[in-house]
Amino acid sequence: MASTDAVKAALKAQHIETPSWAYGNSGTRFKVFAQEGIPRNAYEKVDDAALVNEVTGVAPSIALHIPWDKVDDYADLSKHANDKGITLGAINPNVFQEDDYKLGSVCNPDPAIRAKAIDHLKECVDIMDATGSEILSLWFADGINYPGQDSLRARQDRLAEALQAAYDRLSDEQRMLVEYKFFEPAFYATDIPDWGTSYAHCATLGDKAQVLVDTGHHAPGTNIEFIVAFLLRQGKLGGFHFNSRFYADDDLMVGAADPFQLFRIMHEIVRAGALDKAANVAFMLDQCHNLEPKVPAMIRSVMNVQEATAKALLVDADALEEAQRDGDVLGGNAAVMDAFNTDVRPLLREVREELGLDPDPLAAYKRSGHAERVREERKDGQAAGWGA
Amino acid sequence: MASTDAVKAALKAQHIETPSWAYGNSGTRFKVFAQEGIPRNAYEKVDDAALVNEVTGVAPSIALHIPWDKVDDYADLSKHANDKGITLGAINPNVFQEDDYKLGSVCNPDPAIRAKAIDHLKECVDIMDATGSEILSLWFADGINYPGQDSLRARQDRLAEALQAAYDRLSDEQRMLVEYKFFEPAFYATDIPDWGTSYAHCATLGDKAQVLVDTGHHAPGTNIEFIVAFLLRQGKLGGFHFNSRFYADDDLMVGAADPFQLFRIMHEIVRAGALDKAANVAFMLDQCHNLEPKVPAMIRSVMNVQEATAKALLVDADALEEAQRDGDVLGGNAAVMDAFNTDVRPLLREVREELGLDPDPLAAYKRSGHAERVREERKDGQAAGWGA
Amino acid sequence: MASTDAVKAALKAQHIETPSWAYGNSGTRFKVFAQEGIPRNAYEKVDDAALVNEVTGVAPSIALHIPWDKVDDYADLSKHANDKGITLGAINPNVFQEDDYKLGSVCNPDPAIRAKAIDHLKECVDIMDATGSEILSLWFADGINYPGQDSLRARQDRLAEALQAAYDRLSDEQRMLVEYKFFEPAFYATDIPDWGTSYAHCATLGDKAQVLVDTGHHAPGTNIEFIVAFLLRQGKLGGFHFNSRFYADDDLMVGAADPFQLFRIMHEIVRAGALDKAANVAFMLDQCHNLEPKVPAMIRSVMNVQEATAKALLVDADALEEAQRDGDVLGGNAAVMDAFNTDVRPLLREVREELGLDPDPLAAYKRSGHAERVREERKDGQAAGWGA
Amino acid sequence: MASTDAVKAALKAQHIETPSWAYGNSGTRFKVFAQEGIPRNAYEKVDDAALVNEVTGVAPSIALHIPWDKVDDYADLSKHANDKGITLGAINPNVFQEDDYKLGSVCNPDPAIRAKAIDHLKECVDIMDATGSEILSLWFADGINYPGQDSLRARQDRLAEALQAAYDRLSDEQRMLVEYKFFEPAFYATDIPDWGTSYAHCATLGDKAQVLVDTGHHAPGTNIEFIVAFLLRQGKLGGFHFNSRFYADDDLMVGAADPFQLFRIMHEIVRAGALDKAANVAFMLDQCHNLEPKVPAMIRSVMNVQEATAKALLVDADALEEAQRDGDVLGGNAAVMDAFNTDVRPLLREVREELGLDPDPLAAYKRSGHAERVREERKDGQAAGWGA
Repeated sequence: MASTDAVKAALKAQHIETPSWAYGNSGTRFKVFAQEGIPRNAYEKVDDAALVNEVTGVAPSIALHIPWDKVDDYADLSKHANDKGITLGAINPNVFQEDDYKLGSVCNPDPAIRAKAIDHLKECVDIMDATGSEILSLWFADGINYPGQDSLRARQDRLAEALQAAYDRLSDEQRMLVEYKFFEPAFYATDIPDWGTSYAHCATLGDKAQVLVDTGHHAPGTNIEFIVAFLLRQGKLGGFHFNSRFYADDDLMVGAADPFQLFRIMHEIVRAGALDKAANVAFMLDQCHNLEPKVPAMIRSVMNVQEATAKALLVDADALEEAQRDGDVLGGNAAVMDAFNTDVRPLLREVREELGLDPDPLAAYKRSGHAERVREERKDGQAAGWGA
Repeated sequence: MASTDAVKAALKAQHIETPSWAYGNSGTRFKVFAQEGIPRNAYEKVDDAALVNEVTGVAPSIALHIPWDKVDDYADLSKHANDKGITLGAINPNVFQEDDYKLGSVCNPDPAIRAKAIDHLKECVDIMDATGSEILSLWFADGINYPGQDSLRARQDRLAEALQAAYDRLSDEQRMLVEYKFFEPAFYATDIPDWGTSYAHCATLGDKAQVLVDTGHHAPGTNIEFIVAFLLRQGKLGGFHFNSRFYADDDLMVGAADPFQLFRIMHEIVRAGALDKAANVAFMLDQCHNLEPKVPAMIRSVMNVQEATAKALLVDADALEEAQRDGDVLGGNAAVMDAFNTDVRPLLREVREELGLDPDPLAAYKRSGHAERVREERKDGQAAGWGA
Repeated sequence: MASTDAVKAALKAQHIETPSWAYGNSGTRFKVFAQEGIPRNAYEKVDDAALVNEVTGVAPSIALHIPWDKVDDYADLSKHANDKGITLGAINPNVFQEDDYKLGSVCNPDPAIRAKAIDHLKECVDIMDATGSEILSLWFADGINYPGQDSLRARQDRLAEALQAAYDRLSDEQRMLVEYKFFEPAFYATDIPDWGTSYAHCATLGDKAQVLVDTGHHAPGTNIEFIVAFLLRQGKLGGFHFNSRFYADDDLMVGAADPFQLFRIMHEIVRAGALDKAANVAFMLDQCHNLEPKVPAMIRSVMNVQEATAKALLVDADALEEAQRDGDVLGGNAAVMDAFNTDVRPLLREVREELGLDPDPLAAYKRSGHAERVREERKDGQAAGWGA
Repeated sequence: MASTDAVKAALKAQHIETPSWAYGNSGTRFKVFAQEGIPRNAYEKVDDAALVNEVTGVAPSIALHIPWDKVDDYADLSKHANDKGITLGAINPNVFQEDDYKLGSVCNPDPAIRAKAIDHLKECVDIMDATGSEILSLWFADGINYPGQDSLRARQDRLAEALQAAYDRLSDEQRMLVEYKFFEPAFYATDIPDWGTSYAHCATLGDKAQVLVDTGHHAPGTNIEFIVAFLLRQGKLGGFHFNSRFYADDDLMVGAADPFQLFRIMHEIVRAGALDKAANVAFMLDQCHNLEPKVPAMIRSVMNVQEATAKALLVDADALEEAQRDGDVLGGNAAVMDAFNTDVRPLLREVREELGLDPDPLAAYKRSGHAERVREERKDGQAAGWGA
């Protein structure tokens, strides 16, 4: 078991990136319920993300979604972020919201559309150059809805070609993370449905390509921490998109549906030493708050990751390894459960106080008056949302 | 095994209702890809449904969605339908697309919003009175996204109250079908998640309330034909919303994902004599065509139901029952598989010819010039879609 | 929020029944790994159950499985249990391990086999009369493996007849709980696959028939606490078979796979006042320890239920209801999560000390020398197991 | 579309291997229902497999399971098979039925047990040398039941070591297929849970290691044909274990649960030219007949694969590719469905007649008197089964 000081140090050094799109309006195919005080542009999203960092101390970057967060001057946006105490993080290309992409983007049967999609990927690396972002975060909505709609095999060939083109555009300081998704918006076959597909492509591409694990993108019953442990072993875990789900949608607050699963994932991270910055694993949130207010939901989510991490750090590694070595099934399980059953909130309050923060980030948020202020400031104009 | 004449007679008498909303634009939360020639109002949706009936001969009614299909004069819309050879079918209230319904409609914690939703249900029965529709088709998007968001129990009490209010408004010629849905758009708990919940409410309400089985609304691995057989035994199968899905979305063309399952469902229907009009089981489609053109997709869907029905009618009931009585596992299975493996398309061509139709409905559709005509006629104005 | 005294009182009054079969050897279809010190008969199973009660204080009864636990003199077995401080609990008929039951028991196409199965059910009520057990706990392995193997509908008729026969045999102090199971050992259709099927049969039978919820018997993604809340509303929740599973097998220690789910279930129980003995909900364990030693695994399981119960009792009901009334999504969720995140182990140590027990049941078990003693005492003869 | 002659030629050349263990008794953890006429040893299993080949013409080899099929003289067993018209196929090591393997075989924390397991793998290659088998078919029951029971990562290291040892033992004419399984008998984590894990290990090992796809070993909703197409693209599809399942067990007759899925899999095989012997894809059955008589069930299974193959061969490739190129969603789907909806049984009757076989294999089996003969001949002695 790590010393309390080591645990605290790890928790203070944690870096959880929040996504710009979570600050905008979102919903289901049935309805988007608009909220008040929603940012109208990338600058205001940065402001919200900065506030989340201000009260939690561990969310010092914001991921961007292009073109949703397109600005004229990325250096200026980057400076705005820095002024607010955060940086611009991963760049997420969007190749699913134009009419051209109806039958896919990089896997589209039409070569002209594929070329357009690839151009957008390269454009996003241009933006990375401008912002200093190190991660190109790739998710494709590509797939097919019916058997026979397109060739599964041909689509893989097209995918490989596009990934190669994007890969070749990366500088040595940049890397690309390839996300997989079990289903949606394609309903018969998605072109990167599982970690194996992403892994195989990344292995072919080289060291700058790694797998991105979105915790909401798996078949029912999938053991996600196994995947995490396996990818770490292979040196191919690039990072996470954290969120949670009970059944099929992947956008609830991380840790809300299965906090034990989140703990088990962080346990594998800690066991592999991958919390360390040198391991280069990106911890990013990717979730949309359809009903709950967005900024406090994001604060809560960051806290949920912190709590799972703290519990993982508290596992008594010696006791665990001894039990495992001895084939003591109940003992090994108990070592893990003891940590999970610990209430780490007092520890995290201490960590925050030592960082000069309010021990209660949600109370600090409420006291900040941010919600009231933006409700007034942002009442005119077009609230950001998917596609806006 | 029924005689060929009896099989043909049953196929000619089949009645499959198509849904108005399937003729409008639809999509996923990621993107709605607009199509050309989309109806702009209820009248034009009726026109499209009438064409589906014209070429298939077995789709003589259209379900309406209120308020999407609101018109000033329902008698006039009804007359328009009749002129085109079809009737207005089930009325589907919509209590999920107004901002008030963010936390639910009939289960909302706010009594004023519940009252508003109940009023809409009653308004829909008024419309039934005007259109002569006999079915009030109830689906609620109600549910919660997080444990603790609301009381599961209190929501059931509110639901029961609303169902009772709608039930009391029905005339003796009218009935209400209560649909259940496993998940979406609520992600932690839907208020009617399974057939058991719907059944229990309907049993309390009385004979005019029955369960509606949407084939896309079940947990993975659920044996839907068991539910169908069970509800028929209890006299509580009101009807179907047909569609299909591979994993989680429920809007693919019926029979596209698992034609064997559709056959098994129709097999239970045939075995229970429930294809007979007297059984009062409504066979309705409920699907949205996000990528494929809507009218031919609907024609294909109707044909898929016909083919499954024809196969079910061809099961050798004597051989099946003998094998079942004898505990002949392979024999019983073979009786069912023999029918499923039969190519019933020639039989259905004959049926259509005997009905005076083109044996190939899709060819007839293409020859009709409908697609080209509506592309031109409907190019101005607002295409119908969810919420329009 | 209940006072600490009230919480403690509730925890002291808790009654968790352990199953006799969990003390015998068990395994998968691939292999049963025998353990040492396994009981050889019902008396020795009672001894093990008594020890679990001795160290936990809240497991004062043992469920029996007939014929596995058949004895010549049930009064004597009952006296043995009483001498050890426990009572004989639910009686579980076994109609799945004789060759006759290959195609089912009460649903078998052969009337002679059905009659035999019904006789066994009645025999089990005779045993209840002899032991004073109040619960007949019914689970049927019945079902079919292939479409067409048997008639789904006819099997329901046979099931209804058998349930009625057993029901009619019950005295007024006895009740029957009807368990459902999603799959296994039947692979195409089980005859009671879900709570709805069990509920519909119980509703027909009357007040002495109630639904038994086995927490491992649901489709992936099923919201079990919804079912619990719904059945409580209908007055039809008879009790639980607690265990847990990650994907498909239902025999891991309760709380091991998803402690948050167990907490949510207990939260619904507490909210409905169903922890109270007057509510007549039976809390029974049903799990098999294939790898881990059985007695400590059972102690751990009892503790897991206690911890989930303690957390559920700690939910601040006023704060929860206020948030729910106000539509405060994050607030309602927080009220629930605050309780779940609390470490209740210190509270339970206090509860145990106040009951005169060792605060650490597993330590007390180890100190008792039971494992060593039975390893020696029981080394000859046939260890109990499924079918033995 | 291939010419009828080409289709027939492909069907005549098909090679489907049946598994020795399917001819022995099997069951669930609840009960093994013994059948009559069950083989008592490897020679009699060969006899049954030979009969399946005799009536179908396309099942000319039998897979062996060691130690279940251990014999003193493999050359003699091989000669016996040849005399009966078949050959000995894949060798399947069994490292799950000894008490030592309780916590795993090649992943066991105890190095001595790992060494023992590796020795068994090598012994199986010795047997391959003796029988001329070219395939070492590896499935491990390894895994853990509880979080913390063992280190996920350490187990992968041990697995890699064992796979390497087996790999190094192979001659150039031999290869090893690495099977994955989603769950069971381990319930928290299996050590090779998915194709990605198997693929990554095989990629490290080299060309003689390939992935084995068991059609019953996936999470719900998994698109198996995608995996097949992907592995073919990577040159890593070693073969199949065919069977089917509705929910979670993987031992129903192939094609029984979802014949459309089987067709889609064979469609990918045909599209990739992998039906050709040069593609080196092994088509093996792996299923257990718990209720149905084993030899006719196996015949039926072989016929099901034939029918799916025939349908796949009938897909109009030109029409399909044109529709795919044009983005014609309905057209592409129709090309596939047209083939699936074709009744290929007449074509297969012709194929059999041209091979000099009875067009109806099940009728030929019945006429053969095999069932009656073996019932008498094998009534004494110990029927083969798992572990026997």
